[in-house]
Amino acid sequence: MVIFGGAGDLARRKLFPALYSLHRNQLIDQRFSVLGVGRSERSADEYREIVRDSINRYARVDVEDEEEWSSFVEKFDFVSLDVKTPAGYQRLREAVEERERRYTIPGNRLFYLAVAPELFGPVAARLKEGGLTESDGWKRLLIEKPFGRDYPSAEDLQAQIAGSFKEEEIYRIDHYLGKEMVQNIEVIRFANTLFENMWNNRYISNVQITASETVGVEDRASYYDRAGALRDMVQNHILQILMMVAMEPPSRLKPEAIHDEKVKVLRSLRRWRGDDVKRYMVRGQYTGGYLQEKEVPAYRDEENVPADSDNETFVAGKLYIDNFRWSGVPFYIRTGKRMEEKATEVVIQFKDVPKNLYFNKTNDLGPNLLVIKINPEEGLSLQINAKKPGTDNEVVPIVMDFCNNCQEESPEAYESLIHDALEGDRTFFTRWDEVSLAWKFVDPIRQAWDQEGADTLTFYEAGSNGPKEADALLIQDGFRWHSPYNPRTGSVVHGSPIGD
Amino acid sequence: MVIFGGAGDLARRKLFPALYSLHRNQLIDQRFSVLGVGRSERSADEYREIVRDSINRYARVDVEDEEEWSSFVEKFDFVSLDVKTPAGYQRLREAVEERERRYTIPGNRLFYLAVAPELFGPVAARLKEGGLTESDGWKRLLIEKPFGRDYPSAEDLQAQIAGSFKEEEIYRIDHYLGKEMVQNIEVIRFANTLFENMWNNRYISNVQITASETVGVEDRASYYDRAGALRDMVQNHILQILMMVAMEPPSRLKPEAIHDEKVKVLRSLRRWRGDDVKRYMVRGQYTGGYLQEKEVPAYRDEENVPADSDNETFVAGKLYIDNFRWSGVPFYIRTGKRMEEKATEVVIQFKDVPKNLYFNKTNDLGPNLLVIKINPEEGLSLQINAKKPGTDNEVVPIVMDFCNNCQEESPEAYESLIHDALEGDRTFFTRWDEVSLAWKFVDPIRQAWDQEGADTLTFYEAGSNGPKEADALLIQDGFRWHSPYNPRTGSVVHGSPIGD
Repeated sequence: MVIFGGAGDLARRKLFPALYSLHRNQLIDQRFSVLGVGRSERSADEYREIVRDSINRYARVDVEDEEEWSSFVEKFDFVSLDVKTPAGYQRLREAVEERERRYTIPGNRLFYLAVAPELFGPVAARLKEGGLTESDGWKRLLIEKPFGRDYPSAEDLQAQIAGSFKEEEIYRIDHYLGKEMVQNIEVIRFANTLFENMWNNRYISNVQITASETVGVEDRASYYDRAGALRDMVQNHILQILMMVAMEPPSRLKPEAIHDEKVKVLRSLRRWRGDDVKRYMVRGQYTGGYLQEKEVPAYRDEENVPADSDNETFVAGKLYIDNFRWSGVPFYIRTGKRMEEKATEVVIQFKDVPKNLYFNKTNDLGPNLLVIKINPEEGLSLQINAKKPGTDNEVVPIVMDFCNNCQEESPEAYESLIHDALEGDRTFFTRWDEVSLAWKFVDPIRQAWDQEGADTLTFYEAGSNGPKEADALLIQDGFRWHSPYNPRTGSVVHGSPIGD
Repeated sequence: MVIFGGAGDLARRKLFPALYSLHRNQLIDQRFSVLGVGRSERSADEYREIVRDSINRYARVDVEDEEEWSSFVEKFDFVSLDVKTPAGYQRLREAVEERERRYTIPGNRLFYLAVAPELFGPVAARLKEGGLTESDGWKRLLIEKPFGRDYPSAEDLQAQIAGSFKEEEIYRIDHYLGKEMVQNIEVIRFANTLFENMWNNRYISNVQITASETVGVEDRASYYDRAGALRDMVQNHILQILMMVAMEPPSRLKPEAIHDEKVKVLRSLRRWRGDDVKRYMVRGQYTGGYLQEKEVPAYRDEENVPADSDNETFVAGKLYIDNFRWSGVPFYIRTGKRMEEKATEVVIQFKDVPKNLYFNKTNDLGPNLLVIKINPEEGLSLQINAKKPGTDNEVVPIVMDFCNNCQEESPEAYESLIHDALEGDRTFFTRWDEVSLAWKFVDPIRQAWDQEGADTLTFYEAGSNGPKEADALLIQDGFRWHSPYNPRTGSVVHGSPIGD
């Protein structure tokens, strides 16, 4: 495994801890070896110190046994090179081959690009030029987001990479796909009669996908202000979740079959352009406000953000998938920074029974909801209606819960993804046609917003649930946001009646 | 309210506590009055002592305020009479009228027959002869089980009662219908798209109704040995639950409309007779064994049970409801004494998805189950399949729970039923056509067993889950009993993965 950006932030926060967890759980072959690549000069020992520090700070498991630790960390070494110039790749190749001999690794090479996006193409090209893509074993390229900033730039990048790696060798990371509950969607859908049979427009009234953050732009302002929430969240994470929820049952639970179905969702996704965008999409930017009683600045007052920035930190939209299964079912999406609550969730709202027939005169029925909680809580909530305990005949919504990470912490997304990449399972990576179609959906929206400029921008207070325009998207259809899902008492009451 | 058997066991254990709870929750009109009727001579004060003692021992709520207690107990008085002879009814009438005047009760009279079943008919007749059924207000007869011991005797009893009370004035008690979760069945079914749409033979593979007790015959041997489990449990409780689960949506949620639908279930219930009975019904009697590590005697060794008794303490059966909704769906029923666990439950087993397609190769999928827990635990469990947390792709059954009586104790069945009777709501009482059709289902089974005698009797160890013949009923169809429902760990794991 060769990590470009081998001493960088992602490596320290995510990759080393993930590798260590996999090592501890014996999910990684003992013959592995990690070469960090970066500009600075670093000895192996210095690099191993960095790895140790990363584990201490960020890993799910502590080092308990120094001998076991040594067996892990001795696999790490560092190669210094300027990734843009060919010279160093020869040294890198020698280092790789040396380690393959030492650990009797059959030439299997995983190149992890944890570097700035503008380096993705050049590094991929140099890897080939330097002969690093030639070996007896497999070779794979793990590549971080963003994959381009629109369709043309993504296509350029793809062309550059494709010169060195075949599509089946390219593992594009969308770390949302590494999350337990995103991976669970296909199981929940296809392993349960109860849901599988109802997963269509006859029984589902609408779907809500929310990915809200409480953080602001943090130290990513210079990138973020040019990207915006649409590129940063919708093109990848939100659309990926949408595909998992909406796809047809694949012919087999195999990567290519699943990707084929996911792509079909994007092909059926109605594209918004021109005036549609105004009607179906909302963009917003946070103003100053309070989050957990702490005052936080407006986006325009954040460091490195221009004071007149029209960039959006929030996107909501109403999407339609024009196929037999989903015809007429709105998919509401929403993502934003500095929102009231950190929550990534999917809410499936089922159509109401003709409830006014029986129950709705004096009662307070709720819709049937299946909530797939992705982050930070992981689990399922099912909201149904039942008799309120007591002698009267009141009917109230109740909640049945399943918590996925209450007893045991779930593995980090990167553990799952690195493991899959090592195993050669591309299921939870994104295929080029998914990426390109996602851009083709996003680009006309971006264009419309860029053309109209500030007029399309709404504002929401930091610590709120986004601009009122995002609520209006649902209200005009007779719905409301259920996510972040908190039954009416304000917090989930596990296995108990809510209401009052 | 006139309680025959006013100082008897049922009155003390159930009726007084229920009345007191209703009083405390202000669910009973302050102008109520209770006249206990019994053979012994008792002063009002002596009677009120009995009531006080009953509340102290059996009520859900303690007396906290003596003034409030006085306002309750002063409504109680006692009339001594021999219920079989007409003489006393004149005195009873005077006492009733005197109290109606004192509490300005508009002649509304509830007669509660908490006496031996052979007195039901005579008392009803004398009430009329004594002029007690003549008043300006309503009059209602609450009558305990058993309502006959077969169809002819039930018909006789019905004729006797019908001379004094109209059908709409007769409230036949089946206290299972007073239980929260039995009443909840109609809400769960009809207020939830998720279940309503799947409640038929396209999605449900089988239904299991279990009412198991850990107690033996106790002090009821002389009655029980002549009745048996078929009459004691199946004819009433089990068939009532079956009707609630299986009925079509009523035209309105009104008593008569609901009873109409329940009756239709019994009309569609396939009747077993002659050789069918051997094939579809199992009767058993417990032998000695261990219950919670305590040795318990065989049924034949119980006090007041003949040493050669062929009476059954256990019944299991496979029933079919021959209508469009349930064609081909077996309803397995089971009830017994001295079983391993006390549990009344309904398990709805949904058909499997074509799971071997995707998941079943190495995984351990379970069926989708909806478990309606009636007693002693009250609530819902939903067993579905999900990804086992971790990096591998194992799929395991998980359980989502809702507990109805975990935060607050549910009202006793008798509270609910007395309240309904006072309100004139007959929904959860049994109508004559239900009773008569239930006997018509049960009688031929009884006859077959009586004719074949001991040959039809199987045996099961006390503390077990019944005879193996009862398991065979399901095994031959490829199913197994899920009830009493304990996920594989042996106890319900709330909101957590089971297995391992």
